[in-house]
Amino acid sequence: MDAYNVEGDVDYDKLIKEFGASLIDDRLARKIGHPLVPELFFAHRDLDKIIEGKFAIVSGRGPSMKMHIGHLMLFRFIKFLQDKFGAFVFIPFSDDEKLLARGFSAEHVLKMDYENLLDIIAIGFDPRKTEIALDMVNMKQEVYNLAVEISARMTASTVRAAMGFTGETNIGLQFYPAMQAAHILYPTKSRGLPVLVPIGVDQDVFVKLTRDVAGKIGLKKPGDILSKFIPGLTGTKMSSSKPETSIFTTDTREEVKKKIWNAFTGGRDTAEEHRRLGGRTDVCVVCNYHRVFFQNHEIVRKCGAGEILCGESKRVLLEEVWEMLEKHQKEREKAKDRVKKFVPELA
Amino acid sequence: MDAYNVEGDVDYDKLIKEFGASLIDDRLARKIGHPLVPELFFAHRDLDKIIEGKFAIVSGRGPSMKMHIGHLMLFRFIKFLQDKFGAFVFIPFSDDEKLLARGFSAEHVLKMDYENLLDIIAIGFDPRKTEIALDMVNMKQEVYNLAVEISARMTASTVRAAMGFTGETNIGLQFYPAMQAAHILYPTKSRGLPVLVPIGVDQDVFVKLTRDVAGKIGLKKPGDILSKFIPGLTGTKMSSSKPETSIFTTDTREEVKKKIWNAFTGGRDTAEEHRRLGGRTDVCVVCNYHRVFFQNHEIVRKCGAGEILCGESKRVLLEEVWEMLEKHQKEREKAKDRVKKFVPELA
Repeated sequence: MDAYNVEGDVDYDKLIKEFGASLIDDRLARKIGHPLVPELFFAHRDLDKIIEGKFAIVSGRGPSMKMHIGHLMLFRFIKFLQDKFGAFVFIPFSDDEKLLARGFSAEHVLKMDYENLLDIIAIGFDPRKTEIALDMVNMKQEVYNLAVEISARMTASTVRAAMGFTGETNIGLQFYPAMQAAHILYPTKSRGLPVLVPIGVDQDVFVKLTRDVAGKIGLKKPGDILSKFIPGLTGTKMSSSKPETSIFTTDTREEVKKKIWNAFTGGRDTAEEHRRLGGRTDVCVVCNYHRVFFQNHEIVRKCGAGEILCGESKRVLLEEVWEMLEKHQKEREKAKDRVKKFVPELA
Repeated sequence: MDAYNVEGDVDYDKLIKEFGASLIDDRLARKIGHPLVPELFFAHRDLDKIIEGKFAIVSGRGPSMKMHIGHLMLFRFIKFLQDKFGAFVFIPFSDDEKLLARGFSAEHVLKMDYENLLDIIAIGFDPRKTEIALDMVNMKQEVYNLAVEISARMTASTVRAAMGFTGETNIGLQFYPAMQAAHILYPTKSRGLPVLVPIGVDQDVFVKLTRDVAGKIGLKKPGDILSKFIPGLTGTKMSSSKPETSIFTTDTREEVKKKIWNAFTGGRDTAEEHRRLGGRTDVCVVCNYHRVFFQNHEIVRKCGAGEILCGESKRVLLEEVWEMLEKHQKEREKAKDRVKKFVPELA
């Protein structure tokens, strides 16, 4: 597993040991007080210390495609932390990295920059406590300068080993870990705030590289809060680049319905068998969504007890998802008028 | 020889052959009509084609130290080309590269940015036809974006082979050829103008890499006009980082005098011998300055004929240099009020 290749099942306990991170215990979870902790965000580095004082959250967006509800959940969680702890939020868009790592055209990533920006503004971040910087639109001079300083302290060999790069990797991608680290350390450099990074375990290598380099340039090491992979509708990882795995924030009710109807479930071969044995809720994506995203444990219990069939479970999920999406889409429309508050260059 | 290590004598004919450049012939030299051509600027790629139409000149400044009179001569030459051909001039400051390649602190390069900027503004470039961009002060978004696009098309192996980098080279320096290429191609990308790069033969590798990548991103290949190494006062290469080799633009008359008095000459062991055999004007730095910078061929002839001694030659050079420097220093003072026209961020 590396930052650019994630497939298959993951042993989270093993990962945490390898990473040197800690599981989020009940006490810490209560302090955060959000339903996604520890259900989705299950581990951390220095989270306990960071939330004791003022801090910043850095959470980037790689605008290769439209945002899906997994992203939406993440940014809603960040908004919750902003509201609860008064955290400063910095949201860098790594449009450059999407071009470098995935070969997307500049035109494509700039279009997706705008689409993703609307979703993020729609979440309702406080403009006085939030900065959004798109590397290829409104790159911050301070971020670039920090990337230069950081890159002076990362050798090609170190980055290759950490990232699995080769001689055929382009020099932009080899430089990118310095940009990523600069994104993460920007609030520390510019505002003196310790940084918390909510991040998927598959992206942890960036935080590790950043922690290593922070000390070398006299900045406090960032902490992180690690999330499990977000389950995709088809049973594999949710991915913006595989439309059938994801519910996009702009999907219509009909599209959402179709995707949920085609989702991978733990239903038995026949209705009779399902009623007798109960659904396999542990492997069921629909149950997982009920549980992780909507904390609807009652419907999962009913499914496991054979009291309801997959159709019923899916109908409920559709309503849960659509209630959230419909509201989000209205806010997303209004966000068009608020772009100038965050990224005047795109207004 | 590579871009970061230049020592000893150079066989220019051999270099030109290796580089695939052409010598500047009499006809082309007359078209340019400047005394430094072909005395200092002796070779080129596509210069003849480029000056047939509208074009841009890109000439960077690496602000590691104060500027010396070699730099002054270069930028005066560029100003001449701007006046004569109406060329658009783009002057990128690679302060980032100085930090990456030479380990200077950000504070130091930002201070030198300002000092060098005054010298360049003092030359008298037309603000309507000139852009100055300091990578770490007023980085142009378009330049960064172009660097990203370019870096996607340069592999680590290619850059390593061209630049002599190893695994221990930092990733900033490995990325830098993309930034350099972006500087060079910026006027082509943003204004559709073919670019001419006046550059020392030791920096030619950057132009070669840029020519290679230009085609890949659908931009016209830049041409160049190549200069010989600028002779240093001590007989080695003039270098800002070895103060005794260079006359800085801010030196006092006394400092200039002292440096010229200590210069390496072709004087004979005794005055009698000098009068009898004549000075060795081919190896004499003072004669070289008379010839290349001030076109004072008469004094070189006199020295070679034994009609004058080194002292007299040095006295004349002092007057030549000081006449130019005194004027420049006055313009440099006035330049402080003109910074806002070029780089408002530093005004």
